[in-house]
Amino acid sequence: MSEPSDSQTNPDLDSLTGELDQQHVFHSWSAQGPLTPFVIASGRGSRVWDHAGNSYLDFSSQLVNVNIGHQHPAVIGAIREQASLLATVAPATANLARGEAAKRVAALAPDGFKKVFFTNGGADANENAIRMARQFTGRDTVLSTYRSYHGNTGAAVVATGDWRRIPNEFARGHVHFFGPYLYRSEFWADSPEQESERALRHLERVIQSEGPSSIAAILLESIPGTAGVLVPPPGYLAGVRALADRYGIMLIFDEVMAGFGRSGRWFAFDGHDVVPDLITFAKGVNSGYVPTGGVIISDPIAHFFDDRVFPGGLTYSGHPLAMASIVAALDAMASEGIVENAASVGRDHIAPALAALFNDHPIIGEVRGEGVFWALELVADRSTREPVSAAVMGRIKKELLARGLLPFLADNRIHVVPPCVVTPEEVAEAAAIYDEVLSLDLLS
Amino acid sequence: MSEPSDSQTNPDLDSLTGELDQQHVFHSWSAQGPLTPFVIASGRGSRVWDHAGNSYLDFSSQLVNVNIGHQHPAVIGAIREQASLLATVAPATANLARGEAAKRVAALAPDGFKKVFFTNGGADANENAIRMARQFTGRDTVLSTYRSYHGNTGAAVVATGDWRRIPNEFARGHVHFFGPYLYRSEFWADSPEQESERALRHLERVIQSEGPSSIAAILLESIPGTAGVLVPPPGYLAGVRALADRYGIMLIFDEVMAGFGRSGRWFAFDGHDVVPDLITFAKGVNSGYVPTGGVIISDPIAHFFDDRVFPGGLTYSGHPLAMASIVAALDAMASEGIVENAASVGRDHIAPALAALFNDHPIIGEVRGEGVFWALELVADRSTREPVSAAVMGRIKKELLARGLLPFLADNRIHVVPPCVVTPEEVAEAAAIYDEVLSLDLLS
Ligand SMILES: Cc1ncc(COP(=O)(O)O)c(C=O)c1O
Ligand SMILES: Cc1ncc(COP(=O)(O)O)c(C=O)c1O
Repeated sequence: MSEPSDSQTNPDLDSLTGELDQQHVFHSWSAQGPLTPFVIASGRGSRVWDHAGNSYLDFSSQLVNVNIGHQHPAVIGAIREQASLLATVAPATANLARGEAAKRVAALAPDGFKKVFFTNGGADANENAIRMARQFTGRDTVLSTYRSYHGNTGAAVVATGDWRRIPNEFARGHVHFFGPYLYRSEFWADSPEQESERALRHLERVIQSEGPSSIAAILLESIPGTAGVLVPPPGYLAGVRALADRYGIMLIFDEVMAGFGRSGRWFAFDGHDVVPDLITFAKGVNSGYVPTGGVIISDPIAHFFDDRVFPGGLTYSGHPLAMASIVAALDAMASEGIVENAASVGRDHIAPALAALFNDHPIIGEVRGEGVFWALELVADRSTREPVSAAVMGRIKKELLARGLLPFLADNRIHVVPPCVVTPEEVAEAAAIYDEVLSLDLLS
Repeated sequence: MSEPSDSQTNPDLDSLTGELDQQHVFHSWSAQGPLTPFVIASGRGSRVWDHAGNSYLDFSSQLVNVNIGHQHPAVIGAIREQASLLATVAPATANLARGEAAKRVAALAPDGFKKVFFTNGGADANENAIRMARQFTGRDTVLSTYRSYHGNTGAAVVATGDWRRIPNEFARGHVHFFGPYLYRSEFWADSPEQESERALRHLERVIQSEGPSSIAAILLESIPGTAGVLVPPPGYLAGVRALADRYGIMLIFDEVMAGFGRSGRWFAFDGHDVVPDLITFAKGVNSGYVPTGGVIISDPIAHFFDDRVFPGGLTYSGHPLAMASIVAALDAMASEGIVENAASVGRDHIAPALAALFNDHPIIGEVRGEGVFWALELVADRSTREPVSAAVMGRIKKELLARGLLPFLADNRIHVVPPCVVTPEEVAEAAAIYDEVLSLDLLS
């Protein structure tokens, strides 16, 4: 697929786009001085194009959200159709697309989850899940991990563990703990079992020390994503559930990045033999074609609000365009076996390809992941596990782009996160590009 | 326009919608026990339809967001076209629709505003404006009024003054003050001039008492909306600007509800001879056809982040569908004179119609507003100004709906907030319905 998509091919538009961007667009999480952002004009499947007709393999899924691939015709069709019927409606009304979307999202959750509260994205999904847990328990504190990202709004950014929290500490009631991460264990562990056991012991000590009766919720990415695709070791999630039960704490799984096929399962916690109290989602639910997100609510919490006012809401809760895109995306993912594709391509193609890279390139300290959710952790030295520098990562980004691969980089890691529809051929093509770039003399 | 729109007419869909809603949809700001939300299937201009083909005059503009009216063909067309080209893209990339939207939004602001940070709605617009003000000033406290609504996320909901803040007090750095509201003056004032002067004196005393050097921002709806369409008295906004200047405080105008034509001007603060430091917007910018919002940033604040990382961001910042809808909505509003229509219909038709209602119905204590942004304040007794009860308001809602008018009610008020495209004929039709309902024996 080297021909441009149906967008007009016009390299001048790339420079116009760049100029308008520099003059008028203020960007997320960046200094704004001369930026030269990558211009994207159109996309299809696992590929995007600029206005000059250059194509790139999208192994970022943008911000790990385009699970169904770019421009899936059924989802685009549904958005176009709903746009023609009714674009917007107030949240206090009832709308068919909203009911259909809520039904489908709830159906993917475990038994005992029937209601969905829709938001505009992941941050406000977490805000509202935290709100529900606080109201339901009558407690204040939310525990979350240092290696996490939960969004940029008041509570979500303080629940976040990474550097983005530090300049934003304006919310109370948040405490952080360490999650399992064997490669850089906080617990002096040397096996997955030991890491799991000790991480649980640590969490219990934090709970006891904070005072269990003050703790409303434990908020956890089922697989911490931006922090490094930290697949939890066996028993960890079930152990957290047991602690939550012991102390009357609500368990919120943040499936914003991990959910809807990314792990090769509908939810990343599926198969871990654990049921949370609240599930937050966004990104993959409709691949971000229309801004949306939400909270899937277990029955006891939903019923708690049967006769109590839920003190949260937003103008675009259950927005018709977003709802229509959810219905179409989930139906297409089911009927086309897209989650199964993520699982099988992950197991049979990505895993072996990354294992081969690990064998050939000592700069790779660890490979971890599942489905279409992987990280290559790059180190200056395998024995000390010292992360490579930002300069090395900058060089890698440039070299990958130059070879037609749009990467997702975070800290010292390459996240290998293509759409769930990625083909074995595209994996092979990407693996060859990663191989070529990692073969360069990067560390000198 | 009594014929149904292009949606299929099928009353069964109304009950299906109601059932799905009851089973699976969790609603904003409500108790969830048996709700019977109003079903909306489609809309056009100032009118909506249910699945049975019944039509309603939309004098709510949904949540006061459908400024351009329902299903404006140019905006729907732009969404459909952008959907076919590229639905979603990461915020760190550059995209033509985003640059074009940012350019148009910035062009509406006063000189000295060039950059726009896009969000998903009004709440996160305010979150990010507060963040910018805090970073820029190095101060923490945000002052806002008791009669205000700023959104449901961590900081926005605590900046909010109304009852929705109370169960959500989990953010620090917020202080509230009283704004001008002559009909229920907090300052024992009896003229607009006195109300303005005393409200400013009160604000200065709060600033002095909190310690000016602790105050990052004053966050103010240019016309407080949900709180009652509290058009500021002459001199108030300019007086707030002067106080902000005196004490080195950033002035943020929340134009989420008041902006983009609602007041009969592009921004409600236009014509008040005052320039804020940050402007937040959502709703009217694209009439909510796709969830979006943002912050328009004055040059000094924008430049502050040229070489400093802005510590905020979100996956759907500058979402292509939203951006395309902004471009089309603003272009159509300009070329079709939609803001001018709001001003002239407001002045020549709504104002006289509401004045006539005031003359005929002692239940109306005050009429206030401008453009297509009005409130009828309902009182049990004109001399005591005692608000009518919730039961009376419930009855009014039922009676208005029964006569084919979808109203916006808040506390003891009817907000008269049709789309900016409303026609004189529609105003006359609505006025007749309000008249009929207010003629009922409501207070007994
Ligand atoms: C796990 C997780 N939670 C929440 C969010 C926030 O989502 P949004 O950017 O839509 O607010 C993200 C975004 O990357 C995420 O990865
Ligand atoms: C003045 C004002 N600011 C902010 C908001 C919050 O906007 P959103 O509901 O899109 O978060 C609203 C919503 O009604 C509003 O009226």
